[in-house]
Amino acid sequence: MAANAKWKVAIVMGSDSDLPIIVPAVQRLNAFGVAHEVRVISAHRTPDTAAEFAKNARANGFSVIIAAAGKAAHLAGVLAAHTTLPVIGVPVKSDSLDGMDALLATVMMPTGVPVATVAINGADNAAIIALQIISLGDRAIAAQLDDLKAGMAAKTAKKDANINQRLAELL
Amino acid sequence: MAANAKWKVAIVMGSDSDLPIIVPAVQRLNAFGVAHEVRVISAHRTPDTAAEFAKNARANGFSVIIAAAGKAAHLAGVLAAHTTLPVIGVPVKSDSLDGMDALLATVMMPTGVPVATVAINGADNAAIIALQIISLGDRAIAAQLDDLKAGMAAKTAKKDANINQRLAELL
Amino acid sequence: MAANAKWKVAIVMGSDSDLPIIVPAVQRLNAFGVAHEVRVISAHRTPDTAAEFAKNARANGFSVIIAAAGKAAHLAGVLAAHTTLPVIGVPVKSDSLDGMDALLATVMMPTGVPVATVAINGADNAAIIALQIISLGDRAIAAQLDDLKAGMAAKTAKKDANINQRLAELL
Amino acid sequence: MAANAKWKVAIVMGSDSDLPIIVPAVQRLNAFGVAHEVRVISAHRTPDTAAEFAKNARANGFSVIIAAAGKAAHLAGVLAAHTTLPVIGVPVKSDSLDGMDALLATVMMPTGVPVATVAINGADNAAIIALQIISLGDRAIAAQLDDLKAGMAAKTAKKDANINQRLAELL
Amino acid sequence: MAANAKWKVAIVMGSDSDLPIIVPAVQRLNAFGVAHEVRVISAHRTPDTAAEFAKNARANGFSVIIAAAGKAAHLAGVLAAHTTLPVIGVPVKSDSLDGMDALLATVMMPTGVPVATVAINGADNAAIIALQIISLGDRAIAAQLDDLKAGMAAKTAKKDANINQRLAELL
Amino acid sequence: MAANAKWKVAIVMGSDSDLPIIVPAVQRLNAFGVAHEVRVISAHRTPDTAAEFAKNARANGFSVIIAAAGKAAHLAGVLAAHTTLPVIGVPVKSDSLDGMDALLATVMMPTGVPVATVAINGADNAAIIALQIISLGDRAIAAQLDDLKAGMAAKTAKKDANINQRLAELL
Amino acid sequence: MAANAKWKVAIVMGSDSDLPIIVPAVQRLNAFGVAHEVRVISAHRTPDTAAEFAKNARANGFSVIIAAAGKAAHLAGVLAAHTTLPVIGVPVKSDSLDGMDALLATVMMPTGVPVATVAINGADNAAIIALQIISLGDRAIAAQLDDLKAGMAAKTAKKDANINQRLAELL
Amino acid sequence: MAANAKWKVAIVMGSDSDLPIIVPAVQRLNAFGVAHEVRVISAHRTPDTAAEFAKNARANGFSVIIAAAGKAAHLAGVLAAHTTLPVIGVPVKSDSLDGMDALLATVMMPTGVPVATVAINGADNAAIIALQIISLGDRAIAAQLDDLKAGMAAKTAKKDANINQRLAELL
Repeated sequence: MAANAKWKVAIVMGSDSDLPIIVPAVQRLNAFGVAHEVRVISAHRTPDTAAEFAKNARANGFSVIIAAAGKAAHLAGVLAAHTTLPVIGVPVKSDSLDGMDALLATVMMPTGVPVATVAINGADNAAIIALQIISLGDRAIAAQLDDLKAGMAAKTAKKDANINQRLAELL
Repeated sequence: MAANAKWKVAIVMGSDSDLPIIVPAVQRLNAFGVAHEVRVISAHRTPDTAAEFAKNARANGFSVIIAAAGKAAHLAGVLAAHTTLPVIGVPVKSDSLDGMDALLATVMMPTGVPVATVAINGADNAAIIALQIISLGDRAIAAQLDDLKAGMAAKTAKKDANINQRLAELL
Repeated sequence: MAANAKWKVAIVMGSDSDLPIIVPAVQRLNAFGVAHEVRVISAHRTPDTAAEFAKNARANGFSVIIAAAGKAAHLAGVLAAHTTLPVIGVPVKSDSLDGMDALLATVMMPTGVPVATVAINGADNAAIIALQIISLGDRAIAAQLDDLKAGMAAKTAKKDANINQRLAELL
Repeated sequence: MAANAKWKVAIVMGSDSDLPIIVPAVQRLNAFGVAHEVRVISAHRTPDTAAEFAKNARANGFSVIIAAAGKAAHLAGVLAAHTTLPVIGVPVKSDSLDGMDALLATVMMPTGVPVATVAINGADNAAIIALQIISLGDRAIAAQLDDLKAGMAAKTAKKDANINQRLAELL
Repeated sequence: MAANAKWKVAIVMGSDSDLPIIVPAVQRLNAFGVAHEVRVISAHRTPDTAAEFAKNARANGFSVIIAAAGKAAHLAGVLAAHTTLPVIGVPVKSDSLDGMDALLATVMMPTGVPVATVAINGADNAAIIALQIISLGDRAIAAQLDDLKAGMAAKTAKKDANINQRLAELL
Repeated sequence: MAANAKWKVAIVMGSDSDLPIIVPAVQRLNAFGVAHEVRVISAHRTPDTAAEFAKNARANGFSVIIAAAGKAAHLAGVLAAHTTLPVIGVPVKSDSLDGMDALLATVMMPTGVPVATVAINGADNAAIIALQIISLGDRAIAAQLDDLKAGMAAKTAKKDANINQRLAELL
Repeated sequence: MAANAKWKVAIVMGSDSDLPIIVPAVQRLNAFGVAHEVRVISAHRTPDTAAEFAKNARANGFSVIIAAAGKAAHLAGVLAAHTTLPVIGVPVKSDSLDGMDALLATVMMPTGVPVATVAINGADNAAIIALQIISLGDRAIAAQLDDLKAGMAAKTAKKDANINQRLAELL
Repeated sequence: MAANAKWKVAIVMGSDSDLPIIVPAVQRLNAFGVAHEVRVISAHRTPDTAAEFAKNARANGFSVIIAAAGKAAHLAGVLAAHTTLPVIGVPVKSDSLDGMDALLATVMMPTGVPVATVAINGADNAAIIALQIISLGDRAIAAQLDDLKAGMAAKTAKKDANINQRLAELL
């Protein structure tokens, strides 16, 4: 599917070690034909790039920023400080504390500078929120989201239909 | 300011005891002149109303749904199950566990059905995310968000300028 | 053992990936000869099926509903919203937070819509609660539960008797 | 309403300081006309009474045991060890840890000896589960539960209808 | 070393799956030549044995009871309910929640019925507390504890002396 | 009751702000007529006093050391490092984290240097453990502990007997 | 005491509502005669000021930066991103989660950009770390720190001497 | 690079099992040419060595002490009790509780005796803080820290430049 030129989503990760977490978001946007740019920008190692990127994001044609980071995950908040675009935060699970550190550091933003936070490692859902946002101005995306919803329902229904067979194999 | 007819935000709370938490969101939308509808709908007590509301929300002209609930906060997720509009979840702090129950029950959504979650009791930020989303299709709102950001910066700068005086009073 | 026609237990899981967690519950009900139906119904992906299922569960001859789900585990609560049958919730441990998210999302239900919650991944105990409930109207099941209790005690006593031998192997 | 002679629910608390937490459960059972016995029995201070009570509970005509305790809340588990009746555990919030200690000590039972656990301080819901259990053998109780559900829905709907008025008072 | 006939320590585990956790306690008591009895007694599966054991423990010549259990770890508390001997609780880490459930269920005992709790999986330390208690009436044990302390210091000092060599291997 | 000259318990607190927490322990030992010395010694502010005190505690006639401290509660562990007497740790709840910090800092001791930990703010239980330890060498104390146990049971039984009257007042 | 011209400490808070938390740090630096500048700079509301401040801090004569913030406390990390001066983070307790959010968001920094974190609301200790750092190049400050340590020891010793009198008042 | 004779950093670990965690700190100091001494000293097993070491650390030419320990991590606090040098604490993740125990036991120090705490297992950052401290009196180290910062930025920028290629491999 050719990339939809009207919308562009930024996907920013704090470290390239977060890349496997990010992949489902990229795949989701690809499946919807929505343009995106994937970046490695660190709130702590390349803070000026982060500020620059966020300040210019709207002018550069981005509609939504997805930011994934682990540990004391400041990335989403730092980007949100410099833009009025919606910023979606993906807390990334790290070596200790099971992602609770990244979750709290992402979601507990002070009044005025929100981060729309998804589940730990929930990059796919971040992409879907981006698409939901885009769908407000794009009926085709809205229709694709309806299809996604219907498809998920159908897939679950099919699993439901087959569960006794699968169960029989386990008993 | 006359309500902007193009956009409408739903603010749903699980119980009217959550109303004081919700007020800042209403005030924020009022300040931006964005229409909104405030509802008390419970995922557990009026689940059919919840489903009905969410299924028809897009057709009824809503762009974003803000859902606030406490404890095992299912409201945002239940609404998200029935719509492809962006759903913003506000975990509400309750009598025990300091809001951690509502936070986890709101944010840890499975793939495919996201809830964009803000901080515990962070209804004002939920409204700002709604405005950020609206701003993608509404330059006036985008400009107002710029003003909000500038205003917050100015307010903080003023506090910075006055801090030694305030400090002197405390020493 | 032929299935006891008088009682029927529903075992609902939010995703078929929860199936291995569910197996002990199925085995327990099989061992007691109590009929059951295993379903994959998602509170978020097939919410209408969930509502439909729960609304009709009593009329369809179910006595108890066991619902297992992970992360922001809304399934048990959503079913409980639509039925006055006892709903037993099984929080399922997921990739992060060690099951605490599912536990809180399952157990912290608001007044009026309870979920009887068991331990994380505790599907076998959910089945035993279902049997305890059934035992109130079925003396045979009550007797089987007595046997189960006696059997557990005997098994523990036997382990107690053999522990020094096992210990000797480890020292 | 005259007490329904067919069913009897035990409400056991570990300390009489838990009494205010228990009151809503008593009121709920009273409203449904279901007989109940309220006891103060401690798993740690009167353990023999606890064992005796649980062992004889079924023979003494009880159908369900509700057990409320705080801190290292062993009461529900200790009762469950001595009976095959359904035992519903109510974790009680105490001076520290916000009830998390009581929740985990109540819900995380080992295989074979379940406790059906409700929310922290959720005694009312414990009573409702008891009534749901009783409803399997008592159509009148089932009908009352339907009424309760309808009443809750109506009450929420009424709050929904009035929310703008209440909101206006707060703005 | 011949077992010291004056003292006897009980080591009780809730399940024989806890045996590997218990082994260091047995080895410690063996090293000190203190008699002990290892038992598998479950607070939930063999509660009468637990009560019986604890009630008679002092008369049967025990000085200290060590109790190890996981999840909703009631064993130590249940034994403490039936004896005035010191009861040392060992919370055992289980499949979820990283042992936090067992820790809180063991340590948060109500006033009047204490459990002396050690670290999660800390059975060796439980044995050492037992020996410290015994040392109050047994100078030989006190001397052995001094030796243990001196030995640990020496071992750490040796590791300190060798650390640069070990470090060199890693660099 | 004249103080029992044979035994002496040390009660050490890290800060005199912990004194109200300590009072029940003092009262308990007074009630049993067991001598005790109350000290304010800080692991961090008077560490040499702490080391000195612990090193000489056995020689100075102490049998047990009770140590109460909050936050990063090192006191019990520091004392345990310098003595082979049993050290009972009382985690004290502080301004934040609800006592969880003190609990973990007290109980999670490494192998070889145990602290027998009681519940958060559980000083009374620390005293009772001290008495249980003393009871191994003192039949009078053992008898008093039996009386305490019997008294608690009687008190709970009396509350049990009166609960319906108390309940009636609340309904 | 005249301010020591050689050293200057920055004390930055994210919001002037944190001022009462900051006061003890100011008082401590005043007591040591060390110059300091108190600022209100928000990582989220005035991020450019934050970056500017940190980038120029060393050139502007600062030796240490103390940064206090609550909730998703990014301030210390954001400052640390822009300077190689030591940055000391003070997590501030907020309305929910008891400061755990601020603690994790402050301390769990990624490799390369550290924040030296003190206890929740521990601003006084942040000042003392700043003084310890300064003491490496300033013997007078080192001597004052010795005095502080001695003074704390003396104060605790005095409390120790008076504890029985205070205790007597409470019994 | 020849070791810088002016500065010396102590790296103390509570157990030699912590050595792999410590290695990055050693490598960092080596890379900066800063002398260091690596020690195994236990707050609980060699407490006198710990006290001795800390008391003499300043006189022995140390500028900073890095202390790494797990579980009830008292080491950093115990060292801080005996010195006015900056003490940097590294909480080490252990078998249970994911390092939360060590984090709280390290960071929640009482007023007057601070520990500058880094992330769980964050020894490299501890070394960097030590270097930041040293940089106040050593322009060469300050310049090296600037290089480190620039190098990290360059490395992240390079990863940013290559991310699409890496992503392509994963899609």
